[in-house]
Amino acid sequence: MTQQRAVVLEEKGKLAIRDIDIGHEMGPDDVQIAINTVGVCGSDVHFYTHGRIGPFVVNAPMVLGHEAAGTVTAVGANVAHLTVGDRVCMEPGIPNLTSRASKLGIYNVDPDVRFWATPPVHGCLIPSVVHPAAFTFKLPDHVSFEEGAMVEPFAIGMQAAAKAKITPGDVAVVIGAGSIGVMTALAALAGGCARVLIHDVVAQKLETAGQYDGIIPLDPTRSAAEQVHEATGNWGADVVFECAGHPSVYPTLFDAARPGGAVVFVGLPVDKFDFDLVGAMAKELRMETVFRYANIFDRAVELIASGKVDLKPLISKTYAFEQSIEAFDRAVEARPTDIKIQIKFA
Amino acid sequence: MTQQRAVVLEEKGKLAIRDIDIGHEMGPDDVQIAINTVGVCGSDVHFYTHGRIGPFVVNAPMVLGHEAAGTVTAVGANVAHLTVGDRVCMEPGIPNLTSRASKLGIYNVDPDVRFWATPPVHGCLIPSVVHPAAFTFKLPDHVSFEEGAMVEPFAIGMQAAAKAKITPGDVAVVIGAGSIGVMTALAALAGGCARVLIHDVVAQKLETAGQYDGIIPLDPTRSAAEQVHEATGNWGADVVFECAGHPSVYPTLFDAARPGGAVVFVGLPVDKFDFDLVGAMAKELRMETVFRYANIFDRAVELIASGKVDLKPLISKTYAFEQSIEAFDRAVEARPTDIKIQIKFA
Amino acid sequence: MTQQRAVVLEEKGKLAIRDIDIGHEMGPDDVQIAINTVGVCGSDVHFYTHGRIGPFVVNAPMVLGHEAAGTVTAVGANVAHLTVGDRVCMEPGIPNLTSRASKLGIYNVDPDVRFWATPPVHGCLIPSVVHPAAFTFKLPDHVSFEEGAMVEPFAIGMQAAAKAKITPGDVAVVIGAGSIGVMTALAALAGGCARVLIHDVVAQKLETAGQYDGIIPLDPTRSAAEQVHEATGNWGADVVFECAGHPSVYPTLFDAARPGGAVVFVGLPVDKFDFDLVGAMAKELRMETVFRYANIFDRAVELIASGKVDLKPLISKTYAFEQSIEAFDRAVEARPTDIKIQIKFA
Amino acid sequence: MTQQRAVVLEEKGKLAIRDIDIGHEMGPDDVQIAINTVGVCGSDVHFYTHGRIGPFVVNAPMVLGHEAAGTVTAVGANVAHLTVGDRVCMEPGIPNLTSRASKLGIYNVDPDVRFWATPPVHGCLIPSVVHPAAFTFKLPDHVSFEEGAMVEPFAIGMQAAAKAKITPGDVAVVIGAGSIGVMTALAALAGGCARVLIHDVVAQKLETAGQYDGIIPLDPTRSAAEQVHEATGNWGADVVFECAGHPSVYPTLFDAARPGGAVVFVGLPVDKFDFDLVGAMAKELRMETVFRYANIFDRAVELIASGKVDLKPLISKTYAFEQSIEAFDRAVEARPTDIKIQIKFA
Repeated sequence: MTQQRAVVLEEKGKLAIRDIDIGHEMGPDDVQIAINTVGVCGSDVHFYTHGRIGPFVVNAPMVLGHEAAGTVTAVGANVAHLTVGDRVCMEPGIPNLTSRASKLGIYNVDPDVRFWATPPVHGCLIPSVVHPAAFTFKLPDHVSFEEGAMVEPFAIGMQAAAKAKITPGDVAVVIGAGSIGVMTALAALAGGCARVLIHDVVAQKLETAGQYDGIIPLDPTRSAAEQVHEATGNWGADVVFECAGHPSVYPTLFDAARPGGAVVFVGLPVDKFDFDLVGAMAKELRMETVFRYANIFDRAVELIASGKVDLKPLISKTYAFEQSIEAFDRAVEARPTDIKIQIKFA
Repeated sequence: MTQQRAVVLEEKGKLAIRDIDIGHEMGPDDVQIAINTVGVCGSDVHFYTHGRIGPFVVNAPMVLGHEAAGTVTAVGANVAHLTVGDRVCMEPGIPNLTSRASKLGIYNVDPDVRFWATPPVHGCLIPSVVHPAAFTFKLPDHVSFEEGAMVEPFAIGMQAAAKAKITPGDVAVVIGAGSIGVMTALAALAGGCARVLIHDVVAQKLETAGQYDGIIPLDPTRSAAEQVHEATGNWGADVVFECAGHPSVYPTLFDAARPGGAVVFVGLPVDKFDFDLVGAMAKELRMETVFRYANIFDRAVELIASGKVDLKPLISKTYAFEQSIEAFDRAVEARPTDIKIQIKFA
Repeated sequence: MTQQRAVVLEEKGKLAIRDIDIGHEMGPDDVQIAINTVGVCGSDVHFYTHGRIGPFVVNAPMVLGHEAAGTVTAVGANVAHLTVGDRVCMEPGIPNLTSRASKLGIYNVDPDVRFWATPPVHGCLIPSVVHPAAFTFKLPDHVSFEEGAMVEPFAIGMQAAAKAKITPGDVAVVIGAGSIGVMTALAALAGGCARVLIHDVVAQKLETAGQYDGIIPLDPTRSAAEQVHEATGNWGADVVFECAGHPSVYPTLFDAARPGGAVVFVGLPVDKFDFDLVGAMAKELRMETVFRYANIFDRAVELIASGKVDLKPLISKTYAFEQSIEAFDRAVEARPTDIKIQIKFA
Repeated sequence: MTQQRAVVLEEKGKLAIRDIDIGHEMGPDDVQIAINTVGVCGSDVHFYTHGRIGPFVVNAPMVLGHEAAGTVTAVGANVAHLTVGDRVCMEPGIPNLTSRASKLGIYNVDPDVRFWATPPVHGCLIPSVVHPAAFTFKLPDHVSFEEGAMVEPFAIGMQAAAKAKITPGDVAVVIGAGSIGVMTALAALAGGCARVLIHDVVAQKLETAGQYDGIIPLDPTRSAAEQVHEATGNWGADVVFECAGHPSVYPTLFDAARPGGAVVFVGLPVDKFDFDLVGAMAKELRMETVFRYANIFDRAVELIASGKVDLKPLISKTYAFEQSIEAFDRAVEARPTDIKIQIKFA
């Protein structure tokens, strides 16, 4: 394959837009996609600013980006459900389908998953990629590329909502109103909750969430648990979604849940924190965790296509591909009202 | 207790509005409620026209009605969550709370349930009733009595949606667009489905359902299964809700489901039918059944109060209490566009 | 590949032991296995006697057999968990791992599954086969080939037990004490039930089941439901496993279940029958169906290896490969005390 | 009611056998029971030695004991399933059956539960008690009073096994081989696991567990997680039961689980500990917690009665009622091989 012009993280703190050859062999189960839109994710930014996430270290130049939509430009011999010209979005993690986890349907926890823009695997901020058709999803005509590129971050919220096992009419509370928190709130609401309360200590972050009917921002200056109890006749939330990952949240997290309720951990805690296991046990809470997603992309596309979930208000700013470094620097700023920065190919 | 003026089914085919004493002793866990609005249910109509439903036979005069909202007029000594003046709706089945089923949380299948307007238990088309506080639910200020009286029929749809174990983004199909079908469609949509397709052989019945975003009427002249496959990329519906109870439906019912999907039986079949068990087995379908509801009323009120479910368009006509017999005769007509007839006390 | 000497079903009613070339190309994810023991299954017999099962018609000579254990004789380049000399058993259905069903973990309902000895796919009554390593399972040293060849039929019982979602201490009843019924009873008992009652109208069939502690044969001359109620304080069984497939069973099947219980359909009904859906609804039963198995072989091997399940008493008679036609003819007899006939290679 | 001679905790550290009047009014739903056998629980001992457990403080003399079996001596007017002379065991927590939690079937987390020997509620180390019939369970003739008094501690292990949602053939590991650990191991094994590995740092504690087939003690000098991986082909345990509550356990607890596995927290941690939430998230583990039990006693009796679970080897020593203080002092010693100390009435 020839060289392509891509957004390359050369090393920690150093981005370049330059030619690179990432390989491009198509197998019979693959499709080739011309990328149209790519969202900038917090993990892309973290690799940029820190050069690593946990055990994943940037030791060689790597193309960034894993939230993408585009157009199919070629299909492998075995591919039946896609055709050239289809507008699509892509699931960025590719498991070994013969693994024990994949056979169980939980391919996201297959230890051998290869995930776009996670070292040493290149991402998709590049004009053309080859991808397994099984992880490529057709977008209906009325769903834009911009929305298509939002499917990946929304899928995390959807995985959280799926793990919660919502019973219709549940009341949920989301702790943390950043990108993941808002995505989770939207997924929980569309996924069966009657109301989703949302809390953050930064008031501005609640503005985006607050524009949706059914998502109710709490007072950032008061305890989330206290307000949840006021809003539920002192019963507590059926589901608590932890989307902040901040040490200040965990000691009182379980206070917000009802007896026998569920807590879903979505936010990744980086610092040490006190964990109130006895508090969880006294209410016999179920705790679920989220690691990316599995079997979610088609559902996410369904909810966007049906109009039940509108992600367009979450696209804060769009940059042209040649302005990608500017886009990343804006993302590094982490403005409280920015939910999603996107990059568009010409 | 004194006599009250009520709608009494004297015997099959004979209704009267006349004084009756149904007893009225309040225990410490009870509340007394002034009835405001009562919906007419298909079972009320069936007792009127047939004098029986299965093993339940009208052998003595019985007050009809079990879909009710009203105002609390007295509270027992142990009652903490309700107070005089509260506007409420009532769950009409009263189980034995010490039974094995009740302890398991499935009090609806307690064989000793006493249910309003199911012989020999009187119903609520009467100015004042005594009811256990545990089965009486406060309505928020902005939920009307008319909506409150819709909670009971909506609860059946909600029970169906809960039994389906919807995963967010599911596609469902409802077979049968009568009152129960529409309620189920609304519950399934609010309960997490991306889209709910609905089918009926009577075109007019699809009009009411069709006015809701996300509920998609199918062509009544073509097979439901065929249209479901067209709408789902030849995969099938994640959930099939059977709400018709008609013999013509069962032989091809499972064709509409996806491999590994679920079928929820809500409609009561009265006639014999062919059951395609092998068809269900070939896709390894899960089949759930619905018998009334348990632990659903609070969830139903939540969804109505949050605005996620709007039941007001389903109230087809309202009669004054003194016109109750007229109301029942209209219900007997079973006009295809009638979803719910209600009766209001002065 | 060269010719191999196999048990070939030439056409309905005509078996031969003769040379055949079934192809034998190994891919990088495959292993080659020398077959040691093969069980005769009811479906093999049915193809022999009827030439078809539903839509699957024997239109060309086909090697029979799909319950097998053997020894690995070669491994593909990608295979990590198996090595030459390993004693193994094989899952006979090979799905398309990129299908929607397979990604969900329910690869058994992938419409494209290729299953041994289901036309037009050859079976394993042949000295050497090539099979995907992902569907080949190592047997511990103390588990014999004969037991290994029992894993496949036991897996059906295991799938039924898994679908039942047994809560520890459940009481189950199995209707039908043939091979599948006994396998299901053993799986249910090992899978968490306190007691498994078993019923059949043929008294002799209950003898094999009755030799296991915890499996309790019911009186074949009396109603199963009646005896279940006597044995459970008039509550009913938590789980009813239907393993007979006979029209006489369905009309009263649900009488044996407790309110809110589960019914698992394992037996394939071939004739028409009356289905008491109202009876299921009145108790709000959950109904599950079984189609082969998925993600069960490793669990089945675990239970056999741990000694919790002893399948050896179920091997009724073993034939040498050259006596295979005799073995099939014995199976056709369907003696009531025969559970499993096996064929051993030299 | 008259005075009865009971084991009274006068205050922290001070036990007496003396007369006390604990009230004894029978309601129509109650039974009266002559106590035969009472087990000494760790919580009884903790109240004795510390005078409190968390928010529950011994501020007044309190009768100890909550693990009991006895004989019915009188029945209330509404009681149908019990009769004078029945041998029974009792569930010691009495919820408010009209509460929201109780209606949901999770009455154990009803905040208003009154639990024997939890201040200010008296326990059952007294000759006669009155108890709700709904929480009193008949023992079959062949189940002894001593086994009956073991049902309560076994119920905790059973609740843990039920919360785990064991799939038949699972491999579990129990961390901590004290009384609760052994009960949990037995429940998990009977509840569907193929094998239960058990680990403790005190070698002697593993002796009792090790006498059961299917429960496999690990090397106390080596890491549990490492041994679990060796025993499971480097996959991990399907279920990890945490029964130690010790700070040393939590940092590596999740290492023992398989991807997508479950962790059940049974042990109550009293000291601070590091919680590896990221470790749980990376495998997308489900975490369940246990608070006593609900709807478990009948299942526990079933498993003991069927012979699937033998608790008799866990009764370490039995004292006469008059030696109760000696029994408590032996329990305070906490000998590593003592699982259960019991006290018998004459």
